Amino acid sequence: MDDGLLMIPGPVKLHERIIRAMARQMISHRSSDFEEIFHFCINQLKPLFGTDGDIAIISGSGTAGMESAIASFSKVKRIACIDNGKFGERFAKIASKYVDVDHLRFDWGGSINLERVEESLANGSDAIAFVHNETSTGILNPAEEIARIARRYDALVIMDGITSIGGDVVEMDRWKVDVAVVGSQKCIGAPPGLAAVAVRDRAWEFYSEKVPYYFDLKAYVKKAEEKQTPYTPAIPLFLALAEALKIIEEEGIQNRISRHRKLAHAVRTWALDAGLDLFPKLDEYSRYSNTVTAIKLPKGITDRELRGALKEEYGVTISGGQEHLKGKIFRIGHMGNVTKRDLLATLSAVEEILLRHKACNPAIHSAMEALR
Amino acid sequence: MDDGLLMIPGPVKLHERIIRAMARQMISHRSSDFEEIFHFCINQLKPLFGTDGDIAIISGSGTAGMESAIASFSKVKRIACIDNGKFGERFAKIASKYVDVDHLRFDWGGSINLERVEESLANGSDAIAFVHNETSTGILNPAEEIARIARRYDALVIMDGITSIGGDVVEMDRWKVDVAVVGSQKCIGAPPGLAAVAVRDRAWEFYSEKVPYYFDLKAYVKKAEEKQTPYTPAIPLFLALAEALKIIEEEGIQNRISRHRKLAHAVRTWALDAGLDLFPKLDEYSRYSNTVTAIKLPKGITDRELRGALKEEYGVTISGGQEHLKGKIFRIGHMGNVTKRDLLATLSAVEEILLRHKACNPAIHSAMEALR
Repeated sequence: MDDGLLMIPGPVKLHERIIRAMARQMISHRSSDFEEIFHFCINQLKPLFGTDGDIAIISGSGTAGMESAIASFSKVKRIACIDNGKFGERFAKIASKYVDVDHLRFDWGGSINLERVEESLANGSDAIAFVHNETSTGILNPAEEIARIARRYDALVIMDGITSIGGDVVEMDRWKVDVAVVGSQKCIGAPPGLAAVAVRDRAWEFYSEKVPYYFDLKAYVKKAEEKQTPYTPAIPLFLALAEALKIIEEEGIQNRISRHRKLAHAVRTWALDAGLDLFPKLDEYSRYSNTVTAIKLPKGITDRELRGALKEEYGVTISGGQEHLKGKIFRIGHMGNVTKRDLLATLSAVEEILLRHKACNPAIHSAMEALR
Repeated sequence: MDDGLLMIPGPVKLHERIIRAMARQMISHRSSDFEEIFHFCINQLKPLFGTDGDIAIISGSGTAGMESAIASFSKVKRIACIDNGKFGERFAKIASKYVDVDHLRFDWGGSINLERVEESLANGSDAIAFVHNETSTGILNPAEEIARIARRYDALVIMDGITSIGGDVVEMDRWKVDVAVVGSQKCIGAPPGLAAVAVRDRAWEFYSEKVPYYFDLKAYVKKAEEKQTPYTPAIPLFLALAEALKIIEEEGIQNRISRHRKLAHAVRTWALDAGLDLFPKLDEYSRYSNTVTAIKLPKGITDRELRGALKEEYGVTISGGQEHLKGKIFRIGHMGNVTKRDLLATLSAVEEILLRHKACNPAIHSAMEALR
């Protein structure tokens, strides 16, 4: 009866228009119809990345985008992989398939020690890979600072912007981030299955022909000149992406970022006033994520009790912790086309369940105020 | 006004039910809802491959499936890649990224010299990669014969079944094909964007950890035990695939194969009676494809005139030739959920245009009879 509300950090709930956009008869991927849709997607993605560079769109998940970014530009001596969460760790795992890796491990949920990043570059790393918005812990890493340090050493900068691009400020060209990746199913608000990779000119100096066939970004960029993809694209997902990008254009990217910030601020205000603890430990450079909030699971309730009741009684899906954070945190996604209504519904339902377990204070009015 | 008719060798036109199946609100990829859909897909795919082995479903195009098959099982000394068409050539290109390749080149549109295949194995190749149904030329390569030769040398057998599986007989277990790949947008009748790879036990002896992260079939097979995918799946495409597989179950795989054969027979009968030449040159082992027919473009009409008028005046899209076959052949796809009605509409329209150019004889009644 209830078609539910998805409040996880991606895939996100779909706007009705995006659902309808997919629901059409198949077209040829070599038709002018498709070329137009494809070209529109490429052009609309550029301002979200904050770049005039090349854009490749890969049919595959965000991980495919991460791997294509690493593998295409693997003519490096050593890459420093910043790991303060599950996706930073994934970058290190992927990179170790291709190049020598300096795996910079920090506490998951903690911030990055920028001195250690600089040290790695001073000691011979000529590339950095990092996650801008670490979905697993709800922290926003200091992209601009990291890129600034990298510039001093002329190092290649590869950024996973999978859960920041489209929902928070990203300025590749200004920050001088050379390569960045976004997933379709996060802040952009489309279904999962596409990853876009933006490439600035300088990155091509690091291009390696040893890249896997399907992940060769040069092939994508070259074929994009003909408004086509090198391999058969996931057409329904491109239809959905185009509609999602139209919605973003209508909202305006600045308004969209402001909305994400407002929603994030409301969740944090609510959590703190409810007596809950936010999970990330910030330093002067890092920030709370504006697209997902990680909150420590309070005493008196288990992860299963909270998320189970939320799903069963309210039809709302939120996320738990991943890996060693299982049962220790819960995460609310507020990215994409999430509304104030969705957020109030979610926080009220969470609060009701926590109150039942005497695990929080009433604080929903704080969220209301923050959303005003 | 006209939503068109896609008669290319994939992507194929979608059954209305498949379009509707995609058009629903997003669900979590870690929900029991998704797990059920995923598990259904895995189980329904097995009989199409003719195997009880493992099935991996990758979010990506058929090429991603081919690359995962090669890269995951690259612990081989040398792989013989059979190339008698564009996709055979692609296999060789992909394989050369990972292993030593014996690139066995045959004329595109011609059949395979099985003696040369055997020679390669006798001279140290311990693996074979080949395309079962070569979409670029409309030929069905002798999978069973190739596998039989390979068995004599204990060689690994990797088959691209992208445009045969679901539309023609494939019996991996009986033939002892170790690894096979299918694409969602071909005979199965779903949209593009998913590739499934079936793996028989013996293939794991050739498993290599050097496989790209996203293409590691071991990760997919392991995660499938929990009815999940290792990376976020393209959920709408899984919904569509599940519906497509339901349709196949309802039709029955044997009936489906018979339908494909009947349609193919009708196209060939029509072409020959119209005075056209089929493109493939067969030997005693090879067959005309039952899922796509390649016909030589007759004198008196250009590719643009034929396919242009067909698209503009009739809304029907067929394919031209690829690479050096451009302007020399045209290809009609008759795979997936194509009906007799679709085929008659297509052949009549093609005939009308060819007649206008005095480029064929009237032969549509031959097609009607063949379809009876």
